[in-house]
Amino acid sequence: MTEFVLTTFDWVPELPRGYVRDIRVRWALEEAGLPYRVESVPFEERNAEHFMHQPFGQVPWLTDGELSIFESGAILLHLGGLSEALLPADRKRRNEAVTWLFAALNSVEMASLPWALLMFPGDCEETSAWKFMDDFLRARLGHMETVLAEREWLAGSFSIADIPMSDALRLVDRFDGLANYPACRAYVARAVARPAFVKAHADQMAHFAANDPEPS
Amino acid sequence: MTEFVLTTFDWVPELPRGYVRDIRVRWALEEAGLPYRVESVPFEERNAEHFMHQPFGQVPWLTDGELSIFESGAILLHLGGLSEALLPADRKRRNEAVTWLFAALNSVEMASLPWALLMFPGDCEETSAWKFMDDFLRARLGHMETVLAEREWLAGSFSIADIPMSDALRLVDRFDGLANYPACRAYVARAVARPAFVKAHADQMAHFAANDPEPS
Repeated sequence: MTEFVLTTFDWVPELPRGYVRDIRVRWALEEAGLPYRVESVPFEERNAEHFMHQPFGQVPWLTDGELSIFESGAILLHLGGLSEALLPADRKRRNEAVTWLFAALNSVEMASLPWALLMFPGDCEETSAWKFMDDFLRARLGHMETVLAEREWLAGSFSIADIPMSDALRLVDRFDGLANYPACRAYVARAVARPAFVKAHADQMAHFAANDPEPS
Repeated sequence: MTEFVLTTFDWVPELPRGYVRDIRVRWALEEAGLPYRVESVPFEERNAEHFMHQPFGQVPWLTDGELSIFESGAILLHLGGLSEALLPADRKRRNEAVTWLFAALNSVEMASLPWALLMFPGDCEETSAWKFMDDFLRARLGHMETVLAEREWLAGSFSIADIPMSDALRLVDRFDGLANYPACRAYVARAVARPAFVKAHADQMAHFAANDPEPS
Protein backbone atom coordinates (compact mmCIF):
# COMPACT_ATOMS: atom_id res chain seq x y z
CA MET A 1 0.00 0.00 0.00
CA THR A 2 1.23 3.46 -0.84
CA GLU A 3 1.51 6.06 1.84
CA PHE A 4 -1.26 8.60 1.69
CA VAL A 5 -0.25 12.24 1.59
CA LEU A 6 -2.78 14.72 2.93
CA THR A 7 -2.20 18.34 1.96
CA THR A 8 -3.61 21.23 3.96
CA PHE A 9 -2.72 24.86 4.60
CA ASP A 10 0.45 25.69 6.53
CA TRP A 11 -1.52 28.01 8.78
CA VAL A 12 -4.99 29.50 9.18
CA PRO A 13 -6.34 32.22 11.51
CA GLU A 14 -7.70 31.10 14.89
CA LEU A 15 -11.39 31.28 13.94
CA PRO A 16 -11.52 28.32 11.51
CA ARG A 17 -9.06 26.15 13.44
CA GLY A 18 -10.51 22.83 14.37
CA TYR A 19 -12.94 23.12 11.44
CA VAL A 20 -10.68 23.11 8.37
CA ARG A 21 -11.78 20.30 6.08
CA ASP A 22 -8.59 18.29 6.41
CA ILE A 23 -10.03 17.21 9.77
CA ARG A 24 -12.53 14.98 7.95
CA VAL A 25 -9.76 13.20 6.12
CA ARG A 26 -7.50 12.90 9.17
CA TRP A 27 -10.48 11.48 11.06
CA ALA A 28 -11.23 8.86 8.39
CA LEU A 29 -7.57 7.84 8.13
CA GLU A 30 -7.38 7.47 11.91
CA GLU A 31 -10.60 5.43 12.04
CA ALA A 32 -9.22 3.09 9.40
CA GLY A 33 -5.69 2.99 10.82
CA LEU A 34 -4.23 3.91 7.43
CA PRO A 35 -0.71 5.41 7.41
CA TYR A 36 -0.39 8.98 6.11
CA ARG A 37 1.70 12.07 6.31
CA VAL A 38 0.63 15.70 6.15
CA GLU A 39 2.08 18.29 3.81
CA SER A 40 1.42 22.01 3.70
CA VAL A 41 0.73 24.68 1.12
CA PRO A 42 0.79 28.39 1.87
CA PHE A 43 -2.48 29.85 3.14
CA GLU A 44 -1.49 33.33 2.05
CA GLU A 45 -0.34 32.76 -1.53
CA ARG A 46 -1.95 29.97 -3.49
CA ASN A 47 0.17 29.01 -6.43
CA ALA A 48 -0.49 27.24 -9.74
CA GLU A 49 0.39 23.82 -8.36
CA HIS A 50 -2.16 24.28 -5.60
CA PHE A 51 -4.87 25.06 -8.18
CA MET A 52 -3.78 22.07 -10.23
CA HIS A 53 -4.66 19.81 -7.28
CA GLN A 54 -7.58 21.83 -5.95
CA PRO A 55 -9.25 24.07 -8.58
CA PHE A 56 -11.00 26.20 -5.96
CA GLY A 57 -7.75 27.04 -4.17
CA GLN A 58 -8.95 25.26 -1.05
CA VAL A 59 -7.80 22.31 1.04
CA PRO A 60 -7.50 19.43 1.53
CA TRP A 61 -6.45 17.08 -1.17
CA LEU A 62 -5.12 13.56 -0.80
CA THR A 63 -2.72 11.67 -2.97
CA ASP A 64 -2.80 7.89 -3.13
CA GLY A 65 -0.03 6.90 -5.51
CA GLU A 66 -0.87 8.34 -8.90
CA LEU A 67 -4.33 9.50 -7.77
CA SER A 68 -4.84 13.05 -6.53
CA ILE A 69 -8.27 13.55 -5.00
CA PHE A 70 -9.77 16.83 -3.93
CA GLU A 71 -13.18 17.32 -2.26
CA SER A 72 -13.30 15.72 1.16
CA GLY A 73 -16.47 13.83 0.14
CA ALA A 74 -14.63 12.15 -2.72
CA ILE A 75 -11.69 11.39 -0.45
CA LEU A 76 -13.98 9.79 2.13
CA LEU A 77 -15.59 7.64 -0.55
CA HIS A 78 -12.16 6.57 -1.79
CA LEU A 79 -10.99 5.66 1.71
CA GLY A 80 -14.30 3.90 2.34
CA GLY A 81 -13.44 1.56 -0.50
CA LEU A 82 -10.28 0.58 1.36
CA SER A 83 -11.63 -0.10 4.85
CA GLU A 84 -14.72 -1.71 6.30
CA ALA A 85 -14.21 0.47 9.36
CA LEU A 86 -15.42 3.28 7.09
CA LEU A 87 -17.85 1.60 4.72
CA PRO A 88 -19.62 -1.73 5.30
CA ALA A 89 -19.14 -4.46 2.69
CA ASP A 90 -22.81 -5.51 2.67
CA ARG A 91 -24.41 -4.05 -0.46
CA LYS A 92 -27.51 -2.68 1.22
CA ARG A 93 -25.70 -1.10 4.16
CA ARG A 94 -23.04 0.27 1.84
CA ASN A 95 -25.75 1.93 -0.24
CA GLU A 96 -27.21 3.44 2.90
CA ALA A 97 -23.85 4.85 4.01
CA VAL A 98 -23.06 6.32 0.58
CA THR A 99 -26.54 7.84 0.32
CA TRP A 100 -26.12 9.49 3.72
CA LEU A 101 -22.67 10.72 2.72
CA PHE A 102 -24.30 12.67 -0.10
CA ALA A 103 -27.13 13.76 2.19
CA ALA A 104 -24.60 15.21 4.62
CA LEU A 105 -22.90 17.20 1.89
CA ASN A 106 -25.75 18.22 -0.39
CA SER A 107 -28.83 18.34 1.90
CA VAL A 108 -27.50 19.33 5.32
CA GLU A 109 -24.21 21.12 4.70
CA MET A 110 -25.71 23.04 1.78
CA ALA A 111 -27.86 24.73 4.42
CA SER A 112 -25.50 24.68 7.39
CA LEU A 113 -22.27 25.98 5.86
CA PRO A 114 -23.72 29.18 4.34
CA TRP A 115 -25.57 29.70 7.65
CA ALA A 116 -22.35 29.31 9.63
CA LEU A 117 -20.38 31.54 7.26
CA LEU A 118 -22.98 34.24 7.85
CA MET A 119 -22.64 33.69 11.61
CA PHE A 120 -18.84 33.94 11.65
CA PRO A 121 -18.69 37.75 11.54
CA GLY A 122 -21.06 37.81 14.52
CA ASP A 123 -23.17 40.71 13.28
CA CYS A 124 -26.05 39.09 11.43
CA GLU A 125 -28.73 41.60 10.64
CA GLU A 126 -32.33 40.49 10.79
CA THR A 127 -32.92 40.63 7.05
CA SER A 128 -35.13 38.48 4.87
CA ALA A 129 -32.04 36.87 3.30
CA TRP A 130 -30.68 35.93 6.70
CA LYS A 131 -34.06 34.68 7.88
CA PHE A 132 -34.39 32.61 4.73
CA MET A 133 -31.04 30.89 5.35
CA ASP A 134 -31.95 30.32 8.99
CA ASP A 135 -35.32 28.77 8.04
CA PHE A 136 -33.62 26.66 5.35
CA LEU A 137 -31.26 25.23 7.97
CA ARG A 138 -34.00 24.69 10.56
CA ALA A 139 -36.09 22.68 8.11
CA ARG A 140 -33.16 20.34 7.50
CA LEU A 141 -32.33 20.09 11.20
CA GLY A 142 -35.93 19.19 11.98
CA HIS A 143 -35.70 16.19 9.67
CA MET A 144 -32.29 15.20 11.00
CA GLU A 145 -33.66 15.37 14.55
CA THR A 146 -36.26 12.74 13.61
CA VAL A 147 -33.62 10.54 12.02
CA LEU A 148 -31.07 10.85 14.81
CA ALA A 149 -33.60 10.32 17.60
CA GLU A 150 -33.82 6.73 16.39
CA ARG A 151 -30.26 5.73 15.60
CA GLU A 152 -26.73 5.98 16.91
CA TRP A 153 -25.05 6.33 13.52
CA LEU A 154 -26.56 7.01 10.11
CA ALA A 155 -26.02 3.63 8.48
CA GLY A 156 -26.18 0.96 11.19
CA SER A 157 -22.63 1.45 12.41
CA PHE A 158 -20.16 4.33 12.18
CA SER A 159 -19.29 5.07 8.52
CA ILE A 160 -17.97 7.75 6.17
CA ALA A 161 -21.45 9.30 6.28
CA ASP A 162 -21.07 10.22 9.94
CA ILE A 163 -17.88 12.20 9.38
CA PRO A 164 -19.30 15.06 7.26
CA MET A 165 -22.73 14.88 8.90
CA SER A 166 -21.46 15.23 12.45
CA ASP A 167 -18.83 17.74 11.35
CA ALA A 168 -21.43 19.92 9.61
CA LEU A 169 -23.66 19.78 12.69
CA ARG A 170 -20.68 20.49 14.96
CA LEU A 171 -20.18 23.82 13.18
CA VAL A 172 -23.87 24.66 13.72
CA ASP A 173 -23.45 23.72 17.38
CA ARG A 174 -20.51 26.11 17.66
CA PHE A 175 -22.98 28.96 17.09
CA ASP A 176 -25.54 27.36 19.38
CA GLY A 177 -27.77 26.37 16.47
CA LEU A 178 -28.60 22.95 17.94
CA ALA A 179 -30.23 24.24 21.13
CA ASN A 180 -33.63 22.95 20.00
CA TYR A 181 -32.30 19.73 18.46
CA PRO A 182 -31.16 17.49 21.32
CA ALA A 183 -30.75 14.35 19.20
CA CYS A 184 -28.52 16.23 16.76
CA ARG A 185 -26.49 17.60 19.65
CA ALA A 186 -26.13 14.17 21.26
CA TYR A 187 -24.98 12.78 17.90
CA VAL A 188 -22.27 15.44 17.66
CA ALA A 189 -21.20 14.59 21.21
CA ARG A 190 -20.94 10.90 20.33
CA ALA A 191 -18.90 11.72 17.23
CA VAL A 192 -16.38 14.03 18.89
CA ALA A 193 -15.84 11.49 21.69
CA ARG A 194 -14.40 8.97 19.24
CA PRO A 195 -10.64 8.56 19.72
CA ALA A 196 -10.04 9.02 15.98
CA PHE A 197 -11.79 12.40 16.06
CA VAL A 198 -9.94 13.47 19.20
CA LYS A 199 -6.60 12.70 17.55
CA ALA A 200 -7.56 14.32 14.24
CA HIS A 201 -8.68 17.48 16.01
CA ALA A 202 -5.60 17.70 18.21
CA ASP A 203 -3.34 17.10 15.20
CA GLN A 204 -5.01 19.86 13.18
CA MET A 205 -4.77 22.34 16.07
CA ALA A 206 -1.09 21.49 16.60
CA HIS A 207 -0.36 21.71 12.87
CA PHE A 208 -1.67 25.27 12.55
CA ALA A 209 -0.24 26.40 15.89
CA ALA A 210 3.22 25.20 14.85
CA ASN A 211 3.29 27.86 12.16
CA ASP A 212 2.03 30.74 14.26
CA PRO A 213 4.36 33.73 14.08
CA GLU A 214 6.51 34.24 17.18
CA PRO A 215 4.91 36.75 19.56
CA SER A 216 6.84 39.99 19.13
CA MET B 1 -31.38 -6.37 -14.78
CA THR B 2 -34.20 -5.03 -12.64
CA GLU B 3 -36.27 -2.16 -13.87
CA PHE B 4 -35.42 1.08 -12.15
CA VAL B 5 -38.25 2.99 -10.54
CA LEU B 6 -37.77 6.73 -10.22
CA THR B 7 -40.12 8.47 -7.80
CA THR B 8 -40.87 12.19 -8.03
CA PHE B 9 -43.73 14.49 -7.07
CA ASP B 10 -47.07 14.18 -8.86
CA TRP B 11 -47.11 17.92 -9.46
CA VAL B 12 -45.15 21.06 -8.62
CA PRO B 13 -45.92 24.76 -9.21
CA GLU B 14 -44.70 26.29 -12.46
CA LEU B 15 -41.65 28.04 -10.99
CA PRO B 16 -39.52 24.95 -10.21
CA ARG B 17 -40.62 22.95 -13.25
CA GLY B 18 -37.70 21.89 -15.38
CA TYR B 19 -35.44 22.12 -12.31
CA VAL B 20 -36.83 19.45 -9.95
CA ARG B 21 -34.00 17.07 -9.08
CA ASP B 22 -35.53 14.05 -10.77
CA ILE B 23 -34.27 15.64 -13.98
CA ARG B 24 -30.71 14.65 -13.03
CA VAL B 25 -31.71 11.02 -12.65
CA ARG B 26 -33.84 10.96 -15.81
CA TRP B 27 -30.90 12.50 -17.66
CA ALA B 28 -28.44 9.89 -16.42
CA LEU B 29 -30.80 7.02 -17.20
CA GLU B 30 -31.32 8.39 -20.71
CA GLU B 31 -27.57 8.83 -21.27
CA ALA B 32 -27.00 5.22 -20.23
CA GLY B 33 -30.03 3.85 -22.06
CA LEU B 34 -31.24 2.12 -18.89
CA PRO B 35 -34.94 1.19 -18.71
CA TYR B 36 -36.99 2.88 -16.00
CA ARG B 37 -40.44 3.95 -15.08
CA VAL B 38 -41.59 6.98 -13.11
CA GLU B 39 -43.85 6.90 -10.09
CA SER B 40 -45.37 9.80 -8.21
CA VAL B 41 -45.91 10.85 -4.61
CA PRO B 42 -48.15 13.73 -3.60
CA PHE B 43 -46.49 17.14 -3.53
CA GLU B 44 -49.08 18.51 -1.13
CA GLU B 45 -49.16 15.83 1.56
CA ARG B 46 -45.98 13.91 2.25
CA ASN B 47 -46.74 10.69 4.07
CA ALA B 48 -44.72 8.34 6.26
CA GLU B 49 -43.74 6.10 3.36
CA HIS B 50 -42.32 9.12 1.54
CA PHE B 51 -40.16 9.98 4.56
CA MET B 52 -39.07 6.36 4.82
CA HIS B 53 -37.54 6.63 1.34
CA GLN B 54 -36.48 10.27 1.55
CA PRO B 55 -35.96 11.55 5.12
CA PHE B 56 -36.11 15.20 4.05
CA GLY B 57 -39.50 14.80 2.37
CA GLN B 58 -38.00 15.66 -0.99
CA VAL B 59 -37.61 13.93 -4.33
CA PRO B 60 -36.34 11.98 -6.14
CA TRP B 61 -35.47 8.53 -5.00
CA LEU B 62 -34.64 5.54 -7.11
CA THR B 63 -35.22 1.88 -6.44
CA ASP B 64 -33.02 -0.75 -8.03
CA GLY B 65 -34.37 -4.08 -6.81
CA GLU B 66 -33.96 -4.14 -3.06
CA LEU B 67 -31.96 -0.90 -2.98
CA SER B 68 -33.72 2.40 -2.38
CA ILE B 69 -31.43 5.35 -2.97
CA PHE B 70 -32.21 8.97 -2.18
CA GLU B 71 -29.95 11.96 -2.92
CA SER B 72 -29.47 12.51 -6.62
CA GLY B 73 -25.69 12.48 -6.13
CA ALA B 74 -25.81 8.97 -4.65
CA ILE B 75 -28.14 7.85 -7.44
CA LEU B 76 -25.76 9.21 -10.08
CA LEU B 77 -22.84 7.40 -8.48
CA HIS B 78 -24.85 4.16 -8.39
CA LEU B 79 -25.83 4.48 -12.06
CA GLY B 80 -22.25 5.41 -12.91
CA GLY B 81 -21.20 2.01 -11.62
CA LEU B 82 -23.53 0.41 -14.17
CA SER B 83 -22.57 2.29 -17.33
CA GLU B 84 -19.37 3.56 -18.87
CA ALA B 85 -21.46 6.18 -20.63
CA LEU B 86 -21.70 7.78 -17.18
CA LEU B 87 -18.41 6.88 -15.51
CA PRO B 88 -15.21 5.82 -17.27
CA ALA B 89 -13.67 2.48 -16.30
CA ASP B 90 -10.11 3.80 -16.21
CA ARG B 91 -9.14 4.28 -12.56
CA LYS B 92 -7.62 7.71 -12.96
CA ARG B 93 -10.42 9.12 -15.08
CA ARG B 94 -13.01 7.55 -12.82
CA ASN B 95 -11.41 9.25 -9.82
CA GLU B 96 -11.53 12.55 -11.68
CA ALA B 97 -15.23 12.15 -12.49
CA VAL B 98 -16.17 11.16 -8.94
CA THR B 99 -14.15 14.03 -7.50
CA TRP B 100 -15.92 16.49 -9.79
CA LEU B 101 -19.27 14.98 -8.87
CA PHE B 102 -18.60 15.94 -5.26
CA ALA B 103 -17.25 19.33 -6.33
CA ALA B 104 -20.48 20.03 -8.19
CA LEU B 105 -22.58 19.22 -5.14
CA ASN B 106 -20.45 20.47 -2.27
CA SER B 107 -18.37 23.31 -3.72
CA VAL B 108 -20.52 24.82 -6.49
CA GLU B 109 -24.12 23.94 -5.62
CA MET B 110 -23.53 24.77 -1.96
CA ALA B 111 -23.10 28.34 -3.16
CA SER B 112 -25.45 28.34 -6.16
CA LEU B 113 -28.58 26.75 -4.71
CA PRO B 114 -28.98 29.08 -1.70
CA TRP B 115 -28.25 31.98 -4.07
CA ALA B 116 -30.95 30.82 -6.48
CA LEU B 117 -33.44 30.18 -3.68
CA LEU B 118 -32.91 33.77 -2.56
CA MET B 119 -33.46 34.93 -6.15
CA PHE B 120 -36.71 32.99 -6.65
CA PRO B 121 -38.93 35.52 -4.84
CA GLY B 122 -37.48 38.23 -7.06
CA ASP B 123 -37.21 40.85 -4.32
CA CYS B 124 -33.68 40.48 -3.00
CA GLU B 125 -32.76 43.35 -0.75
CA GLU B 126 -29.24 44.67 -0.84
CA THR B 127 -28.25 43.36 2.57
CA SER B 128 -24.92 42.12 3.82
CA ALA B 129 -26.31 38.57 4.00
CA TRP B 130 -27.42 38.69 0.39
CA LYS B 131 -24.15 40.26 -0.71
CA PHE B 132 -22.23 37.59 1.14
CA MET B 133 -24.10 34.82 -0.69
CA ASP B 134 -23.58 36.59 -4.01
CA ASP B 135 -19.83 36.95 -3.37
CA PHE B 136 -19.62 33.31 -2.24
CA LEU B 137 -21.15 32.19 -5.53
CA ARG B 138 -19.02 34.54 -7.64
CA ALA B 139 -15.82 33.21 -6.10
CA ARG B 140 -16.79 29.68 -7.07
CA LEU B 141 -17.89 30.73 -10.56
CA GLY B 142 -14.58 32.46 -11.10
CA HIS B 143 -12.73 29.21 -10.49
CA MET B 144 -15.18 27.22 -12.64
CA GLU B 145 -14.69 29.72 -15.45
CA THR B 146 -10.95 28.94 -15.45
CA VAL B 147 -11.63 25.20 -15.44
CA LEU B 148 -14.30 25.26 -18.14
CA ALA B 149 -12.38 27.59 -20.44
CA GLU B 150 -10.00 24.68 -20.98
CA ARG B 151 -12.24 21.64 -21.27
CA GLU B 152 -15.44 20.45 -22.87
CA TRP B 153 -16.50 18.18 -19.99
CA LEU B 154 -15.14 17.94 -16.46
CA ALA B 155 -13.45 14.55 -16.66
CA GLY B 156 -12.24 14.04 -20.22
CA SER B 157 -15.60 12.96 -21.61
CA PHE B 158 -19.18 13.45 -20.47
CA SER B 159 -19.75 11.82 -17.06
CA ILE B 160 -21.97 11.86 -13.97
CA ALA B 161 -20.01 14.93 -12.82
CA ASP B 162 -21.38 17.02 -15.67
CA ILE B 163 -25.01 16.37 -14.75
CA PRO B 164 -25.12 18.18 -11.39
CA MET B 165 -22.48 20.72 -12.37
CA SER B 166 -24.24 21.88 -15.51
CA ASP B 167 -27.62 21.64 -13.81
CA ALA B 168 -26.45 23.79 -10.89
CA LEU B 169 -25.02 26.35 -13.32
CA ARG B 170 -28.20 26.22 -15.43
CA LEU B 171 -30.18 27.43 -12.43
CA VAL B 172 -27.74 30.31 -11.96
CA ASP B 173 -28.10 31.10 -15.66
CA ARG B 174 -31.88 31.25 -15.25
CA PHE B 175 -31.37 34.34 -13.08
CA ASP B 176 -28.72 35.73 -15.43
CA GLY B 177 -25.93 34.94 -13.00
CA LEU B 178 -23.55 33.70 -15.72
CA ALA B 179 -23.42 36.96 -17.69
CA ASN B 180 -19.76 37.44 -16.76
CA TYR B 181 -18.82 33.77 -17.09
CA PRO B 182 -18.93 32.91 -20.80
CA ALA B 183 -17.20 29.53 -20.44
CA CYS B 184 -19.71 28.47 -17.77
CA ARG B 185 -22.55 29.61 -19.98
CA ALA B 186 -21.17 27.76 -23.02
CA TYR B 187 -20.82 24.62 -20.89
CA VAL B 188 -24.48 24.86 -19.86
CA ALA B 189 -25.43 25.30 -23.52
CA ARG B 190 -23.44 22.16 -24.48
CA ALA B 191 -25.09 20.20 -21.69
CA VAL B 192 -28.68 21.15 -22.47
CA ALA B 193 -28.13 20.38 -26.16
CA ARG B 194 -27.54 16.70 -25.38
CA PRO B 195 -30.45 14.53 -26.57
CA ALA B 196 -30.63 12.81 -23.17
CA PHE B 197 -31.09 16.16 -21.41
CA VAL B 198 -33.67 17.32 -23.96
CA LYS B 199 -35.72 14.16 -23.38
CA ALA B 200 -35.34 14.30 -19.58
CA HIS B 201 -36.45 17.93 -19.53
CA ALA B 202 -39.44 17.36 -21.83
CA ASP B 203 -40.49 14.31 -19.81
CA GLN B 204 -40.36 16.23 -16.53
CA MET B 205 -42.36 19.14 -17.96
CA ALA B 206 -44.97 16.74 -19.36
CA HIS B 207 -45.14 14.79 -16.10
CA PHE B 208 -46.01 17.83 -13.99
CA ALA B 209 -48.32 19.35 -16.63
CA ALA B 210 -50.30 16.12 -16.80
CA ASN B 211 -51.46 16.70 -13.23
CA ASP B 212 -52.35 20.36 -13.56
CA PRO B 213 -55.89 21.05 -12.38
CA GLU B 214 -58.42 21.63 -15.17
CA PRO B 215 -58.87 25.35 -15.88
CA SER B 216 -62.17 26.37 -14.30
